[in-house]
Amino acid sequence: MAPSRHDRHSVIDCALRLLDDVGLPDLSMRRIATELEVQPSALYWHFPNKQVLLAGVADRILAAVPEPDSSADPMRVAHAVLDALLTYRDGAEVVMSTYALRLGTPRAQRALSAALGALPDHDVRADAAFEFILGHATLLQQRMHAQSIGAVESDADDPTVHSDAVFDAGISALAGIGATR
Amino acid sequence: MAPSRHDRHSVIDCALRLLDDVGLPDLSMRRIATELEVQPSALYWHFPNKQVLLAGVADRILAAVPEPDSSADPMRVAHAVLDALLTYRDGAEVVMSTYALRLGTPRAQRALSAALGALPDHDVRADAAFEFILGHATLLQQRMHAQSIGAVESDADDPTVHSDAVFDAGISALAGIGATR
Repeated sequence: MAPSRHDRHSVIDCALRLLDDVGLPDLSMRRIATELEVQPSALYWHFPNKQVLLAGVADRILAAVPEPDSSADPMRVAHAVLDALLTYRDGAEVVMSTYALRLGTPRAQRALSAALGALPDHDVRADAAFEFILGHATLLQQRMHAQSIGAVESDADDPTVHSDAVFDAGISALAGIGATR
Repeated sequence: MAPSRHDRHSVIDCALRLLDDVGLPDLSMRRIATELEVQPSALYWHFPNKQVLLAGVADRILAAVPEPDSSADPMRVAHAVLDALLTYRDGAEVVMSTYALRLGTPRAQRALSAALGALPDHDVRADAAFEFILGHATLLQQRMHAQSIGAVESDADDPTVHSDAVFDAGISALAGIGATR
């Protein structure tokens, strides 16, 4: 089999575009191949299976997270990770499944760990913060999806919605912010 | 249409058994109806749609969480919630989707909130802790599933696996345990 005229980078570009259009459940290798006007087998030249391709997509989603910086504010880093996940449809689920299989680059954890570097257990706290952010973002995206198809009401008039407060309280606690007050 | 000879409770029983057997992606209303030897329309006598039925399943999964108790140890309550989610295949995803749509009973959040009652912001912290537990349990179940189908290696010989340490560090921080040391 000859290598595809598409490189890894352009396949991931296409997968990310399709993810936004059709969502994760409908993002098949066949669909990506059709979009690129190649046979599915051409994709396997670059990626042994779909999970490895999705790991490339996950890395691209998290590329917006800043480089590790020990002087960074942990709250800002956490919001950068959250924003990256929310930028693409089903972004949290793509990154969650990649992390579950320990594929992809731990860019988010490294940035969180660096920002928490003053704490002795910054590595495990960074992993815990990442798991919290993934849970939070998955819940938000599932709710947004349900709203987009009209399955639930908009949150606009719902006073019980305090999602931002929950996120900031969680990150503050995990980052030890205010802990000695 | 006559009411089904099955009541709500027995339909949820059946759905929970099927969940363990086939997993969430294959748990359709049709499949539950076939298992109960009724027409799918009979299920809609009790549940207006699948999400409401799944909310009943989520409540059953979380029934193992103890009643709210302000003298309970937050770490024990958190482990009880985690254990409940891990008891059934895809339990974390069923509860996550139910919580995203704000269906189901907030039994876990109430138990966590009561145990965190000494903290002024115990309600938002309890929600944050629940989101963290959902993220953690989803990652664990996705990894266990990948291992069960042979997609990834077992963790037995992997020294980088420190899942329990991450969980306990996360809950300690969210519960303010050790924060004033």
